[in-house]
Amino acid sequence: MPTSGKKRSNLYLRVSLRDTTAFGPGKAALLEHIRDTGSIAAAGRRMRMSYTRAWGLVSDMNDDFRTPLVASAKGGAGRGGARLTRLGEEVLARYRRMERRAARAVAADLAALREKAS
Amino acid sequence: MPTSGKKRSNLYLRVSLRDTTAFGPGKAALLEHIRDTGSIAAAGRRMRMSYTRAWGLVSDMNDDFRTPLVASAKGGAGRGGARLTRLGEEVLARYRRMERRAARAVAADLAALREKAS
Repeated sequence: MPTSGKKRSNLYLRVSLRDTTAFGPGKAALLEHIRDTGSIAAAGRRMRMSYTRAWGLVSDMNDDFRTPLVASAKGGAGRGGARLTRLGEEVLARYRRMERRAARAVAADLAALREKAS
Repeated sequence: MPTSGKKRSNLYLRVSLRDTTAFGPGKAALLEHIRDTGSIAAAGRRMRMSYTRAWGLVSDMNDDFRTPLVASAKGGAGRGGARLTRLGEEVLARYRRMERRAARAVAADLAALREKAS
């Protein structure tokens, strides 16, 4: 999955929610772009993702939780608008915090590894 | 990349060494299987990976560090043997420690996310 245009992290963290569902940097970036643009189509374009793919990921995420992460006005000519629900904001915030905490937790070992990288 | 047959972690952690090189669970599992089997071919089979692919990953890893992670007796009929170098053991140990530390660091947020997963 393409990542956002923002600076690349040193860490790629994906967590399993259930056996077959996971949440990682691609879904997090998509949620952020939806929050920032108010549109699934625009968020997908920012990630060079087709509308169909972006919508599919949103649909997956909404199905993966008890209540939706993204609320959208259905299709039509303008393709409606979209926004993060309260749970969507929470999931995004928790994921970003997990990334930060994981990065801190591995920082010393990662620095040591990099010293030995060519 | 296929993961090992061991229990699946709740966490997938990949770290960047340089812009174009990374180290994650697949490479870690391959190193472990090489350590355990003494053979790149056998390690690859355990991961349902072709010999060519396993050897390519080993070659990549060896190139990614200042000194090789895997020492191998070259090809031939028996396809030689392979073992982890001291640096290979260190890289593997550091990666597994990073996984453990990252898992602890995100445990609370991950538990909260899972409570809301469907």
